[in-house]
Amino acid sequence: MPSPFYIHLTASDGAARSGEMTTANGVVHTPAFMPVGTQASVKGVHPDDVRASGAEILLGNTYHLMLRPSAERIAALGGLHAFMRWPYPILTDSGGFQVMSLSPLRKITEEGVTFRSHIDGAMVELTPERAMQVQMLLGSDIAMQLDECVRLPADRTEVERAMKLSLRWAERCKRAFEGAAAGRALFGIVQGGDDHALRAESARGLVDIGFPGYAIGGLAVGEPQNVMLDIVGETAAALPAEGPRYLMGVGTPDDLLAAIARGVDMFDCVLPTRNGRHGLAFTRFGPINIKNARHADDHEPLDAESSCPAARDFSRAYLHHLFRAGEALGGTLLSIVNLFYYQDLMAGARAAIAAGRFAAYAGAIREQWVAKADLHAGDD
Amino acid sequence: MPSPFYIHLTASDGAARSGEMTTANGVVHTPAFMPVGTQASVKGVHPDDVRASGAEILLGNTYHLMLRPSAERIAALGGLHAFMRWPYPILTDSGGFQVMSLSPLRKITEEGVTFRSHIDGAMVELTPERAMQVQMLLGSDIAMQLDECVRLPADRTEVERAMKLSLRWAERCKRAFEGAAAGRALFGIVQGGDDHALRAESARGLVDIGFPGYAIGGLAVGEPQNVMLDIVGETAAALPAEGPRYLMGVGTPDDLLAAIARGVDMFDCVLPTRNGRHGLAFTRFGPINIKNARHADDHEPLDAESSCPAARDFSRAYLHHLFRAGEALGGTLLSIVNLFYYQDLMAGARAAIAAGRFAAYAGAIREQWVAKADLHAGDD
Repeated sequence: MPSPFYIHLTASDGAARSGEMTTANGVVHTPAFMPVGTQASVKGVHPDDVRASGAEILLGNTYHLMLRPSAERIAALGGLHAFMRWPYPILTDSGGFQVMSLSPLRKITEEGVTFRSHIDGAMVELTPERAMQVQMLLGSDIAMQLDECVRLPADRTEVERAMKLSLRWAERCKRAFEGAAAGRALFGIVQGGDDHALRAESARGLVDIGFPGYAIGGLAVGEPQNVMLDIVGETAAALPAEGPRYLMGVGTPDDLLAAIARGVDMFDCVLPTRNGRHGLAFTRFGPINIKNARHADDHEPLDAESSCPAARDFSRAYLHHLFRAGEALGGTLLSIVNLFYYQDLMAGARAAIAAGRFAAYAGAIREQWVAKADLHAGDD
Repeated sequence: MPSPFYIHLTASDGAARSGEMTTANGVVHTPAFMPVGTQASVKGVHPDDVRASGAEILLGNTYHLMLRPSAERIAALGGLHAFMRWPYPILTDSGGFQVMSLSPLRKITEEGVTFRSHIDGAMVELTPERAMQVQMLLGSDIAMQLDECVRLPADRTEVERAMKLSLRWAERCKRAFEGAAAGRALFGIVQGGDDHALRAESARGLVDIGFPGYAIGGLAVGEPQNVMLDIVGETAAALPAEGPRYLMGVGTPDDLLAAIARGVDMFDCVLPTRNGRHGLAFTRFGPINIKNARHADDHEPLDAESSCPAARDFSRAYLHHLFRAGEALGGTLLSIVNLFYYQDLMAGARAAIAAGRFAAYAGAIREQWVAKADLHAGDD
């Protein structure tokens, strides 16, 4: 019988906290990083390698999956976990963000959003109720409410309108999600752009409705990092301590550490895999652009001490060659290297929080990256 | 200390034979299929997965590797085995075939071939002596002589000229290869197009020079299968029983079984990986075009009884989705499925030869494929 969803906080260090989130498909240790499996695949990486990296939870994209192969088809095939052979926790977004960024034509009304599919041009309607139905068909452990995400900078009136619409949609989502299977959770999403008052109003509104966890949405959409972190810190503080806090679509290792310091528990981002496919490796020594000519004769691995076999077992010269020669194996190996890096970063954060030395840990990580940037400025 | 190269024949069944070929980097059981690692990578497949498929020997392409990253660079990095993390036997071709098929400009003289690199346009010279030097730098367990391969159909005069040039190059290659490390072998290549007399003359000439193994080159270049098999049968019979016989660049499962029946021991071909990347799976039930719409809702795996995890663990619907969605994991998984299929086909052939029932084995495999073709004619 699936366990009910809950988070158990195990340690805290300042605003940073670590915990264990129990879902219908297993436990997730927080702070947690979720690799992105947009189209039911973490791009180029076998699910066994995703798991080996230490990932305990994946993110799936409702927008992509509802269009292809369709939520009904995935449900008939036993749900997203079975379909993509990932029997561990899965969080799905609501589709709202991708409707804004990918659909060539969309119309937002009180009822929901109507958009043209970027795949076959068909008109598709996504309401709060349909977003819940799709995510229940997929079998998500954690579903996200439908929201409207505004690109920054934007007029305050526009940000406020979208935030209030998202609050009304949050209520409808909660009602529609009542039929979900045991142990499944629905998270509300705080909106309000870079406006502190609107963010506070959004957080209060969601807490009044009541969710087992909350996301901070609509950030990393063009604003400077300090603006983002200010909003993250205030918003996290306004959310209940007993629920997980999820910062959507963020970010760099530095973003993650800074957000953890402000009380965030969960992250997702395409950075490790997208950068891996483009030849950028995340390592203990900072970022390494493997396509750079100076790696052509380097017999050293990316990191002989890494927990990642791909970082230990292949020379930089070989990885460099794979990218120069256009061999797909290069992108796969660097994606794996980066997934391990992100998971190790989170494991280190959890251990540091438990030991009460999170600030020192974050500082040491940042120093590695900065030292490297100094050594090879304008090079990597 | 590396063992000297030799082949020990363990069983025969008609003209078909099985054996153990001992190389400096390990034993290869024959009949053997060599996956192709053109640019020091079996496209899209991790070397651990290539090994897991049962492959005991890979083919590397001298033409590609000498141009990028260069033989000298690979030698400085410890040789091709270390470079691509394949510590098992490697055979390299001589580069001649790719000069003909890939280089936009080439000039053949008695001395060798001069061609324009398809990568950076530089003029490159490949002589028999340079072809040996490159393969020794790569550290090949089995090197191939430089030859000139003529596209069929061609004038008899042209085929004869190229065959005789290849014989003279074979002598120069043998001399140049005398400095190779212990246990390394050089194979001669029989040419002569589809002309039986020229093939016989080529085989005699090579045997007079004397090589530890012989390849049959210049086939599968446009001629019908029966023409190819007639040449293969006659040529194999004209070669010494105690040396391995390698049919270059061939082919389909049916080609392999027919050539084994005629006394061939070794094969290489891009078919399993190239077809895998394009959505065609080789299975016990025949070829399956996974992109076909009828797989969209099929929760069955490609083959629940397969020795290949990728064939067992993912549904046809999921593999179909990966191809429809353009996800690279699909090509990787089907490449692995096909590599396992080819290796299992060879393992089955070896067992059947040992049991004296090779003809029945080959017949049963052909029947599976034909039955499937009947069921879904024009579909897969």
